[in-house]
Amino acid sequence: MNRVDGKTWRVIRVTQPGLALCLAVAASLAGAEPAPPEKPRTMTDVLAASKPSDWRPLDPANTLYLDIAAGRVVIELAPRYAPQHVANIKALVAEKYFDGIPFIRSHDNYVVQWGDPNGGDKEKAKPIRTAKRHLPAEFSRPIDKALPFTPLPDGDVYAPEVGWSDTFPVARDPEAGQTWLAHCYGTIGAGRDNAPDSGGGTELYVTIGHAPRHLDLNVTLVGRVVQGMELLSALPRGTAALGFYDKPEQYVPIKSLRLAADVPEAERTKLEILRTDTETFTALVETRRNRRDEWYLKPAGKVELCNVPLPVRAIGKAAQK
Amino acid sequence: MNRVDGKTWRVIRVTQPGLALCLAVAASLAGAEPAPPEKPRTMTDVLAASKPSDWRPLDPANTLYLDIAAGRVVIELAPRYAPQHVANIKALVAEKYFDGIPFIRSHDNYVVQWGDPNGGDKEKAKPIRTAKRHLPAEFSRPIDKALPFTPLPDGDVYAPEVGWSDTFPVARDPEAGQTWLAHCYGTIGAGRDNAPDSGGGTELYVTIGHAPRHLDLNVTLVGRVVQGMELLSALPRGTAALGFYDKPEQYVPIKSLRLAADVPEAERTKLEILRTDTETFTALVETRRNRRDEWYLKPAGKVELCNVPLPVRAIGKAAQK
Repeated sequence: MNRVDGKTWRVIRVTQPGLALCLAVAASLAGAEPAPPEKPRTMTDVLAASKPSDWRPLDPANTLYLDIAAGRVVIELAPRYAPQHVANIKALVAEKYFDGIPFIRSHDNYVVQWGDPNGGDKEKAKPIRTAKRHLPAEFSRPIDKALPFTPLPDGDVYAPEVGWSDTFPVARDPEAGQTWLAHCYGTIGAGRDNAPDSGGGTELYVTIGHAPRHLDLNVTLVGRVVQGMELLSALPRGTAALGFYDKPEQYVPIKSLRLAADVPEAERTKLEILRTDTETFTALVETRRNRRDEWYLKPAGKVELCNVPLPVRAIGKAAQK
Repeated sequence: MNRVDGKTWRVIRVTQPGLALCLAVAASLAGAEPAPPEKPRTMTDVLAASKPSDWRPLDPANTLYLDIAAGRVVIELAPRYAPQHVANIKALVAEKYFDGIPFIRSHDNYVVQWGDPNGGDKEKAKPIRTAKRHLPAEFSRPIDKALPFTPLPDGDVYAPEVGWSDTFPVARDPEAGQTWLAHCYGTIGAGRDNAPDSGGGTELYVTIGHAPRHLDLNVTLVGRVVQGMELLSALPRGTAALGFYDKPEQYVPIKSLRLAADVPEAERTKLEILRTDTETFTALVETRRNRRDEWYLKPAGKVELCNVPLPVRAIGKAAQK
């Protein structure tokens, strides 16, 4: 069966014929047996050689479990980038505001979104007890030495610099002294109306297509999906304008949205993510810049920020991707 | 109801406060009434002002209708980039090879793929009568003055130049004298095994996530989906390795795959696409580089190749996107 690519994790035979040739020529000049060519590492090799300290567990105080009929979606919040929105989402979660709130939108190659279908109607909107409905924008934050940053060397169409900060894909503008979370696949943002302070976290969207980076600096991003994206990205697309569902019977209700710290230990989904400030991650990025899996004939030599996977695994298990 | 962005197509009120301010200051200096600021155009405005000659109909000789239970997917082939593969796919379609062949793979943030589940088994593989099973690779082709090219000015992480050629997103390497179709959302490629000539068009994939541009120059691309992507992108994800479906009962069969030219006129889906060698398209790209819809607070100033939509409409109707 043909494959699009060789993503299977198996042993590489020969991937650098040029190098092998050079070694053969050198060996022939020296009259010796050619040394076996050094095998370039694939992502599988890099992950297999990772150390336990290359991984960090998700912090239960910043992890959400979004349960729908199809299963559980695990979300990691980014309090360093959107402290007020994250605190407000936790307050909404604590008062179980989101339980029963549905996915109301599935816009192809763009976003799925959940929120109160009556959110815009003061009379009918679901009441909020302790949390806030609106917050000032947190579109970017100052660059700070305390904030880790692993740069990607390949440039970016949208921002002067891109890379990762504590496993989150980020962009930076050193001249403006600002940094922000970048919209990649699975990023979660707070929907808003035209006013910058009209969001707050009661409506959240998840990107499901080609990274809509033009939304950067226009929306407060609050985190990203770490596991379960396939449950959201395959939701039937809405047929009304902007991918909203036409009829309430199409809504996909949230059974519950909980902070991991509030869930009994035995019911938690315990995951760890590859740290991005490690040599292992730098080696992984290199395997994505230059694919050496035997299927590839022409490595790209570069990689886009949003094409670098962030490996996640159950604690103590092999990496998922 | 909060929106992620202001994609609704409506009249813009004010979008350039900076410009408005400058005009007001200038007017105040001159002691005159301020002139109303010129409204920057949105994509809606640009499409509404398009001329009939800005559009070209799909050529029935290079258009496929892929019918599944959920509906029809309209595909445009790219014979200028993959002449042998396109001819072979037409031959396969002519002998109804694909009728009953299923989608066997739905890999999140990557591809859906159809093909003979027994394709790798010489005994069980579905027979091919006149077409070929394997073809030489057509990963790129020479740059040729006869080939139109509308460049995108914003650069690209993967290729020296990108832009559009007769509405297809393409990349180019002027030094190597080569050009190729770029993997964007909805691009269709011919799956292959490790050998470059192990594909041929019997298995085809469609990209459903962030553009996997690292596949460029590694696969023969044969065309793209023009309408109906949402029927493919929302297929349930496969749970076996690489997103293949675990069990045959999960397969999604193709009811029929036909060349538009072979379908009675009354049953055709008549579409036209915005030409990319027009001033209207250049203006549209500018509305994507700098979004002036009132929801946007900070236009990006640039745009990635794969974030520029290619508007399609039923002939004689308003544009779909």
